[in-house]
Order: sequence, then structure tokens, then C-alpha cells
Amino acid sequence: MREIVLSPSIMCADLANLETSIKELENEGLDTLHIDVIDGAFSPSMPIGIETIKRIRELTDMNFDIHIMTMNNEFFINEMLKIGVQNITFHYETSLHVDRYVRLIKEAGTNASIALNPATSLTVLDSIIEELDMICLMLINPGFATNKNEKQVPYAKKKIMELKQIVQEKELATAIQVDGRVSTDKITSLVSAGAENLVLGSTSLFNKENTLAENKQLILEAVNKGNS
Amino acid sequence: MREIVLSPSIMCADLANLETSIKELENEGLDTLHIDVIDGAFSPSMPIGIETIKRIRELTDMNFDIHIMTMNNEFFINEMLKIGVQNITFHYETSLHVDRYVRLIKEAGTNASIALNPATSLTVLDSIIEELDMICLMLINPGFATNKNEKQVPYAKKKIMELKQIVQEKELATAIQVDGRVSTDKITSLVSAGAENLVLGSTSLFNKENTLAENKQLILEAVNKGNS
Amino acid sequence: MREIVLSPSIMCADLANLETSIKELENEGLDTLHIDVIDGAFSPSMPIGIETIKRIRELTDMNFDIHIMTMNNEFFINEMLKIGVQNITFHYETSLHVDRYVRLIKEAGTNASIALNPATSLTVLDSIIEELDMICLMLINPGFATNKNEKQVPYAKKKIMELKQIVQEKELATAIQVDGRVSTDKITSLVSAGAENLVLGSTSLFNKENTLAENKQLILEAVNKGNS
Amino acid sequence: MREIVLSPSIMCADLANLETSIKELENEGLDTLHIDVIDGAFSPSMPIGIETIKRIRELTDMNFDIHIMTMNNEFFINEMLKIGVQNITFHYETSLHVDRYVRLIKEAGTNASIALNPATSLTVLDSIIEELDMICLMLINPGFATNKNEKQVPYAKKKIMELKQIVQEKELATAIQVDGRVSTDKITSLVSAGAENLVLGSTSLFNKENTLAENKQLILEAVNKGNS
Amino acid sequence: MREIVLSPSIMCADLANLETSIKELENEGLDTLHIDVIDGAFSPSMPIGIETIKRIRELTDMNFDIHIMTMNNEFFINEMLKIGVQNITFHYETSLHVDRYVRLIKEAGTNASIALNPATSLTVLDSIIEELDMICLMLINPGFATNKNEKQVPYAKKKIMELKQIVQEKELATAIQVDGRVSTDKITSLVSAGAENLVLGSTSLFNKENTLAENKQLILEAVNKGNS
Amino acid sequence: MREIVLSPSIMCADLANLETSIKELENEGLDTLHIDVIDGAFSPSMPIGIETIKRIRELTDMNFDIHIMTMNNEFFINEMLKIGVQNITFHYETSLHVDRYVRLIKEAGTNASIALNPATSLTVLDSIIEELDMICLMLINPGFATNKNEKQVPYAKKKIMELKQIVQEKELATAIQVDGRVSTDKITSLVSAGAENLVLGSTSLFNKENTLAENKQLILEAVNKGNS
Repeated sequence: MREIVLSPSIMCADLANLETSIKELENEGLDTLHIDVIDGAFSPSMPIGIETIKRIRELTDMNFDIHIMTMNNEFFINEMLKIGVQNITFHYETSLHVDRYVRLIKEAGTNASIALNPATSLTVLDSIIEELDMICLMLINPGFATNKNEKQVPYAKKKIMELKQIVQEKELATAIQVDGRVSTDKITSLVSAGAENLVLGSTSLFNKENTLAENKQLILEAVNKGNS
Repeated sequence: MREIVLSPSIMCADLANLETSIKELENEGLDTLHIDVIDGAFSPSMPIGIETIKRIRELTDMNFDIHIMTMNNEFFINEMLKIGVQNITFHYETSLHVDRYVRLIKEAGTNASIALNPATSLTVLDSIIEELDMICLMLINPGFATNKNEKQVPYAKKKIMELKQIVQEKELATAIQVDGRVSTDKITSLVSAGAENLVLGSTSLFNKENTLAENKQLILEAVNKGNS
Repeated sequence: MREIVLSPSIMCADLANLETSIKELENEGLDTLHIDVIDGAFSPSMPIGIETIKRIRELTDMNFDIHIMTMNNEFFINEMLKIGVQNITFHYETSLHVDRYVRLIKEAGTNASIALNPATSLTVLDSIIEELDMICLMLINPGFATNKNEKQVPYAKKKIMELKQIVQEKELATAIQVDGRVSTDKITSLVSAGAENLVLGSTSLFNKENTLAENKQLILEAVNKGNS
Repeated sequence: MREIVLSPSIMCADLANLETSIKELENEGLDTLHIDVIDGAFSPSMPIGIETIKRIRELTDMNFDIHIMTMNNEFFINEMLKIGVQNITFHYETSLHVDRYVRLIKEAGTNASIALNPATSLTVLDSIIEELDMICLMLINPGFATNKNEKQVPYAKKKIMELKQIVQEKELATAIQVDGRVSTDKITSLVSAGAENLVLGSTSLFNKENTLAENKQLILEAVNKGNS
Repeated sequence: MREIVLSPSIMCADLANLETSIKELENEGLDTLHIDVIDGAFSPSMPIGIETIKRIRELTDMNFDIHIMTMNNEFFINEMLKIGVQNITFHYETSLHVDRYVRLIKEAGTNASIALNPATSLTVLDSIIEELDMICLMLINPGFATNKNEKQVPYAKKKIMELKQIVQEKELATAIQVDGRVSTDKITSLVSAGAENLVLGSTSLFNKENTLAENKQLILEAVNKGNS
Repeated sequence: MREIVLSPSIMCADLANLETSIKELENEGLDTLHIDVIDGAFSPSMPIGIETIKRIRELTDMNFDIHIMTMNNEFFINEMLKIGVQNITFHYETSLHVDRYVRLIKEAGTNASIALNPATSLTVLDSIIEELDMICLMLINPGFATNKNEKQVPYAKKKIMELKQIVQEKELATAIQVDGRVSTDKITSLVSAGAENLVLGSTSLFNKENTLAENKQLILEAVNKGNS
């Protein structure tokens, strides 16, 4: 059975009390924090600042899984490397020197991943896929998550399965991350399609109808059903 | 005697415990919070996110004094107006439609201000100055504050005095804000030159050698010496 | 037999007497008007303005088939949705959030299409093709039509056939539009290759050697020969 | 007494019947047509296309007074020079090579003018003013005219007077054009402040409560009152 | 046996004595000069100027093989065509109108080639490949050659083989150029994988441990081993 | 009497034999080399590359007077500082952080200067002028020098005199450099107007009708007439 990584999104924590929120996540045994870095130009959104990331880096040993959605990826990659993070994902769509960014990240001992917008073809990965630690498939349009009407794209599952097949045919260890409305009730389906890393937000781990512990339990059950 | 406004910069608060930090400022009787919004493109810096500002807006009635340093000012102005803030300052240097932005802000019942980089001539304000609630003079290059070598420009005081003279000759009520290494030992000089609104950071209110209360006391004494 | 749509280009109408031109097209039983929207930055061309489109929208019930060739597709898509049009085509090459634009258009009840420059690979459509109502294959470089030396690319027919095969293998209803020097003498060949929607200009419907009625008759004959 | 030029804006003509509209203007003895060229990037607006301007150039000998509001002024200046126009105005705010554009226009035997956004200081003209045939003062934010809430800036008259004084002190023949909500009831005031060229739209010449002839008569009366 | 073209890079010549350097290359029987044109925006590098290329064009009949790495390819293509060169390679990644640039070059009687960054998928060539004289595969990130840590990408050979297979299946005469750390000890391997045009720099032809003649001899031996 | 600096432009040297050209200039006792760095985006020109500047830096101790005409001044300033030059001039018009660039240059022990396009008002220097070692007044549009029709602007002398007056009133040591068609026959007039640093090209020092020595002699005579 594959190991499935849970990546709670910091955007669903209490941004005025991050130290407390992070302790709660740690207490639940969660070891990864998914952090969106958006510049207001890639998408009309700028959720969290670099200084905030620097500050919480001092407070926890959780893995920082950084998702950069910007127009100037090289600048933000370098900022994250200075802070010290465990994974950096950047978008193919706004990258001129894709191989260079991968190399920059990996030479710092950090995992390097590429994110694809929903409509982006998997063929863009042809040459570089073997260099990647993870591929992040966006299942909604990135940076528009606060728009409640934004739904998971209908071709989400199909795309995961196609990527899973490519990864298997090439016998790679590259993980598949899914991001965007990964709700508890969709997790079994997404995991069975091939997802191995789940970005968790308000429709799963931070569902306000339950406690964090209850949500985690429901998620693990859904994961297990899909992971066989 | 002029009223001098103290504007503590949120960047010097504890970004992992903002609720607590804000309560401390309120307890000291401070009623304004200076918040820098930078997009990583105007300057190599992106201190704090929009979602964080939304979150702290729920927690306090302090005046939010927003300093936008971005390439796409219209987007960020609109985001701040949605949140509900008391003053929005944007930079002349990155604004194509200066009058439009001023109007956009004022029609929402918010104070409208323009910030000038250190080297920017005061003549750029000729036509618009009478429409402004405040003018923010940058005394260091904006967005580079984390660079410890960045010093206050030598022509800071001279520029404040020139602007003060213009404001007085036109008989305007426009306030003069100063931002950048406004250290406690410089405050008397800056206030006497004409500054009425002080952005306070690590070299004054958040000087770690004293308590917040002590720093505030020292600042008020310096203000009073300059304000006669 | 497939239905073949004729899309007369407004650029070949009399731009000083659009009301009259549109009536002539209506009288010939043509029900679609192809309208190029170019911003002078995508290509060195800006054929027609938004205010003109608004004005002619008041005069006719013809289907407006909008072909956006711009750097800021989201702005122009929203402008067209406000006017009320039947199809919006935007270019893949200048779109960061392809799925988002498709969704924006379809949620307004409008057909959504993507245009590809001649050299753009069909693989870019892999993930999104099932969401599209139409795909527009540019057979000349878009926005350079006024350059008389600009010829249809030699690989035009081959590309249409490859796209037709993809559409058939996926059992989709997506229409194939061809745009660029679709002259009457090429129509049989283009239709037999798989084209179902023809953008008609000065080398076919608006050929000045014949009347509109005669040109239409010649086009229909050419279509019929290719559509079997 | 100064000669005052009336410049009816083409945006207020019937864009579906331009030939007819232009004849009506000619019949009223109007000899200038003001044409806004906007690219959707300078402002969220793209009123009229280049091909339309080309077409109407064939129909009339009126002076074409082109107001370019774009990000790439050199391209649009060259397009207008190819068409053959009598005046080209471009914006200072989006021009890197101001002197070069002036020279390009004048060497083609065309009048060269610079437009200033409402908030732009007159000092930007210091070096170049003697080379200009006209200066266009925007009295509303350019490209936002379709927004009915957009009002003439309160400092309009003051700015005209300041520019008039500069022109007189330098003993120049440079004309002052005013553009933006130049309504019939404001014309006396604007002309007396120094305006010599009036861009006329829906609040003056195209006021729908009167005929074109009646509006023209009212405008001339207002002009005469201000021009003494 | 395929003909293998040697393309010495001008960057490794003596830039203060180009006339002498070029004579030395001619004397060794080399007939092609590879010239990188970078604008400082595509990559942080601007090796050589256009005026220098113009000047050396007067001195030699060698084939000029121009490799454009810029954001505004159309401008630089036109500059090179004015100078008179034998091949122009531009990058797919920064080209909006790929077919147009190919046509522009070929209509001038010049060879037209496309370069791909290391991570760029070969699928981007699907539609245009038959129009190309050469394809340049970057084996390091372009414009970063002066960074000594920049190594040839591990997937270099695999990508060459995949492109060679495509070219052969389509029965094309398109040459494959390789660029980036093409050191003498790698040449046999690269040629046997399918490379037919070698960009030669400090790790091969300009290796300072040998004379130009000795290096050329070693290269030819390596080529012959791989070309069977 | 003021000291007048002669700055021969490298663009007029033999770009294929720079070492020889530089020796000739040294032999004539010239100690400064004016080097234009243009990126093809500021102006349609890219005269000389960074690698060439690095190479000639090894060959001579002449003062390198660098004139940066680019969109990304910070990058090029840093490149020049790495090479080691004596003066860096950058353009106000393309600089967001003017004071920062001045500081960057001066902290490296290099002279810092600002260049103004012909039409740029001197008021833009109000705040920063006291920090500058030199001000470069462009007398033609920068980067268009190869266009033989490009003439010195008619307001050249007037602008020099206005700047001279400002410098004297402020009692500054800031030098005034003039650049653009500084022909031998204009030098007396330019020097008497206030110019102290002359960029010399094909119409003065490199006038092909005389030897370098003869041209230098004529220039010195013209300088002396103006410098009294």
C-alpha cells in the first residue's frame, strides 16, 4: 500500500493565532504544512506573506510544503530556500527556465515539484518528469479558492489516472499531489485514481462541523478505502 | 500644537500571534496599525498577506493604515476597500491613473494618501495635492527595510520641510507621514521639520531594549520636543 | 452529413455602414457574424472596437462569434459577456488560466472555444478538449491578415485531419473552425479534411468579383463537395 | 479673440452608420473629428478600431484629431501616420521616448500634442512644451468616460489657468485642449480659463434633448461668453 | 555517414581581438560561427552586441549561426536579417507567433531553427517541425553558461534520441543541434545519439590545454567514433 | 576654468579590434571610455555586450564611464559593479527605485549619475540631485544614434543652461555631461552653456576626415573657446 501524505493548508488555520493552530496540527500527528505563496499577479490573491512564513519556521519542525503561484518564480524559490523548507512546488505555466528552477531547489537539498493548472497538458512534463519529486495537479483554478462557486474540474479523476499511468510506465517514484476542493467525500475516489498527497482545506480537515481529530479520522478512512 | 499620529508597523508585531500583539498595542492606547502590502514585484519583499489582514480586521477596531507597494495598485486598493480600512496609501511611481485611485478610495469613505519614494520630486503632487488626506514620504527605499544596511536618506529632513512649506502655502490640512528608520532619537527632528504621522518600527516603538510602554513614553517625549 | 457553419468576418463588411452591411448578410440567410477583437499587442492590429460591437448588437439577432486575440483575455471575455454574444474564442497562447476562462464563458450560457496559432501543437488541448464547444485552427498567423503576402500555412490540411481524428476518437461533438485565407477554391479540401465552421473573408464571401449571393452559392457548392 | 476649435467625439456618433453621422457633422460646418484610440490596457476600454478609422478616412476631409491612449504609443502613432491624420495626441504617462514621438509626428507634417492625465503635474512639460502644437488636459480619468459616475475633477479650471499662464509667459502658440465632461454649461468657464479646443460629447454637441444644430448654437454662445 | 557541423561559439574567441580570432578559425577550415544574442531579460546575460556582429560580418564569409535568446524575438530576427546571416535560431518558449518568425526568416533566404530549453517537451514541435531547417536542443539552461556549476542535464542523451526518432519517422532532413557543455569527451555519445551540429566552446574547441588545431583534431576523432 | 572631460564612445572604435583601438586612445592621452549598455527593449539597439566589457577591462586602466539604457537597471548596475568601472549612469525614466540605485553604486566606491531623455523635465532631480556625481543630458533620443536623421534637439542649449543654473544655485560640484551629436562645431557652444563632460563620437573625435590626434586638437580648441 502506498503512503498517502496529508497536507493541511495553512490558509484554513487561524491566521491571527498561527502558533496555536500549528500546535493543534502537531498534536494530531500531522507533520506537513501546505503553504500557498501567491503574488496577486498570477491570481487575484495574496494569502500569506513571506515574513509570516519566516516567523512560523521558528516555531515548528513540520515539513513546509510550499506552493508558489507567482510570475517571478526564481525570486520566491530563493526566498523559500533561505527560510528552509522541505518541498517547493512552482507552476510550469509561468516558468521560462523550468530545469533551472528544479536544479536550484534540488541543489539546496529540497524536494522539487511542478504544479499544473487544470487545463495544462501532461505532455509538458515529458522531458523533466524524471527529475521531479512530486507533481501537483490543480483540480480547481489556482488562487480562486475563496470563490465559493469554483468547483473541482470534471476531468480531475481522468487526469490523475493518466498521470499515474505515465509515472508507472516510466517506473518513477514521483508522487502525485492533488489540490483544490479535495473534500472528504472525494478522497477515496482521488486516492484510488492515483493521488498520494492530499492538500486539505475547509472541505476536509478544517470542516467546521467536526473537530480536527474527527475530520482526520474521516479522512484516513476515506484514504484507506481508496488505497488498496 | 499639531496632533501627531503614531502608526505602529504590523511587521514588528509577532506574526504568529497577531491577536495577542494587537491587544498589547490597544492596551497601550495606540489606535492605528500601519500595514505594508507589498507584492514581491515593486520590491523584493512580500511581508503579509491579504487573508491575514482580513482575519485581524475581525479582531480590532484600530484604524488600519494601509501602505500599498505594488505594481497593480487598483487590484490591491479594491481588496483593501472590501476589507474595510481607514486609510489607503499608494505609490505615485507605479500609478498610471493617480486621480482615479484617489477617487476610488475617497468615494468609499476612506482616507486617500500618496507615498513618494525618497528620490521622487514633490512636483509630481502639483495637481493632486489638494485631494489628498496624507502624503507619505519614504525615508528609506521601500520594501528594503529588512536590509540592515539601508539607512535613512541624508535629504530626509530637507524634503519634509519643503513639503511642509508647500502644504502651508496652499493652506491645506494634508498630513505628512514619514516612513523608514523613524528611530526614537530622530523623532524630535522629524516632527520639528513637519512630520505629523510617524510609522514606528524596530528602532522606536518595538525597540527590544524596553517595554512597549517605555518605548511609547520615550516617543511621546521626543514628539513633544519637536512639536512646538 | 455534418452541418457546416458559415461565419462571415465583419472586417470585410463596410465599417462605415455596418447597419446596411449586416442587413445584406441577414438577407442572404447568413446567421453568424465572426468578429475579431485584437488589442494591438497580441498582433500589430486593432480592427474593431468594443463600442462598435455594442452598437451592432442592438441591430441584429445574428450569432456573434467573437475571436479574441489579446494579452488580457479575462478583460475582453467579460466585456463580450456583458454585450451578449453566442460564442467566445480565446487563444491558448496568451492564457494563463485556460480552464477558468472556459468556465467563465460557459457559466454565462455562451459557447466556449479555444484558438490555436498555426504552429501550436494539438497536445495543448489534451486536458481541456472535452470542455470545448469549438476549436479554431488558425491557418495564417492571426492579426496579420492585412498583409497580403501572408499565405495559408502548408500544414493546414494535415493539422485539421489530425484534430478531426482526435475529436472522433474521443467521440466528441466539438466543432472545428478554420480561420485564415479560407478561399472558395480551398473550401472543398478544408471541409473534407474535417472543418465544420468556416471564417469567410475577402477570398470567399466578400470576393469583389461577384455579388454576395453568387459568392454564397459558390461557397455552398464547395462545401457540399467536401462534405460527404 | 482666440479661435476656439470644436472637436466632436466620434464615440458619440452612430457607430453602425458612421458615413451618415459624419455627413451630418460636415453639414453643420464642423471640420474636426476627435477620435479616441484605446488599447484596453491603458484603460479598460477599446472604443473604436484602426480599420474603422481607415474606412472613414476615405469618406471625409475633416481634420482627424487622434487621441492615443495606449501602452505602445509608437505602434499606434505609426498606424495613424499611415492613415493620414491632422493631429496626434499621445499620453506623457506611457511614453518612454517623448521627444522621439513628437519628432516622428512632426516630421510627417502632422501636428503633435501631448495629453496629461488629471493628476499629472504640468512640470513634466518643462523641456518639451515649445515643440508641441497642443496640450490636452484630461478633466476626467481617460478611458473611463462610459462610467457615468466619473465626474470632472474639481481642480480642472485651476489647472487650465496654470497652463495658460505658462503658455503666455513663454509666448507660445500652443493650444490648450480640454477633454472630459466638457458640458455646454461648463464651456464658458473652461474657455475663460484658457481652453481653446473643446472635445465635445454627450453632454454638449450630442446632448439628445436637442438637434445637432441647436446644440452647436448653444455651444457657440457659451464659447463666446467665455472668449472675451 | 551524416555530415556533422562544427559551430565554434564566438563567446570563446578573444572579444578584444575578434578579427584575429576569426582568421584563426578560418585558417583551421572552420566555416561556421555560432553567435549567442541574449538581451539580459531572457537570461541574466548579454554576451555580445549587435554592432559587433555587424562589424565582424564585414570581415568574414563564415556562416553566421545566430542563437537568439530574447523576450522580443521579432526585433532581433529582423536585426539579424538586415546584417545577413545564414541561420537564425529562436526560442519556442518566448515566441507568441512561432510560424510567423519561421516564415520571416525563410522568406529572407535564411535557415530557420527553433531552440528548446532543456525541460521543454518535444511535443511543442508537432505542427511546425516540417518547416524547420534545424532544431537546437539546449543541454544546459541557456544564458547561464558562465556559471561553472551549470552541468549538462542528465536527460540530454535521451532527449536527442527521441528527437532523432521523430525526425526519422517523419523522414525529415531537419538537423539536430546540441548546445551546452558539449565537451570533447561527450561528443561521441552525443553524435551517436543523433546530434549533427555541435556548438563548441571552452570544453572542446577552445580547451586551453591544447592548440585550436589539436582540439579540432580531437573533436573530429570523437565525431567519427559516434557517426557510424 | 572648469576641467572638461572628454569621453570617447566605444561605439566609434573598431569593434573587431578593440585592443588596438583602446591603445590608440590611450596614446592620445585620453583617459575615459564611454560605454553604452542598451538591452534592445529601452531602445531598438544593443550595441555591445557585457562579456566584451569584461574583456577590455583586463586591457586598460582607462576610466569606464558606463551609460546604462535598459528596462532592468538593477541587474545591469550590478553587472557593471562586478566588472569594476569608474562611473555608472542610469536613466531616470526606467527606474522605480532611483535612490536605491544611486546608493548601490556609491557604496561600491563608484561615481553615480543619472541620465535624462531630452524631453524629461529637470524637476525630476529635485530631491536626489545632491547625491549625484554627474547628470547626463541626452541631446538626441538615446539608442537611436545609428539613425542618421536623428538630430540634436533644438532645446539642447537652453536645457544645459537651466541645469547649470540649478547646480550653481545649490552650490553643487555635480558635473554636466552632454551626449548626442556633440559635434566639434557645437562644442564651444555646449561648453559655454555649462557642459563639463562631452561624449565624443563620429561627429567629433572619430570624424573620419582627420586623424585621432587632429580631431582631439580641434576639440580642445573648441573646448577652450567655450570654457572661459
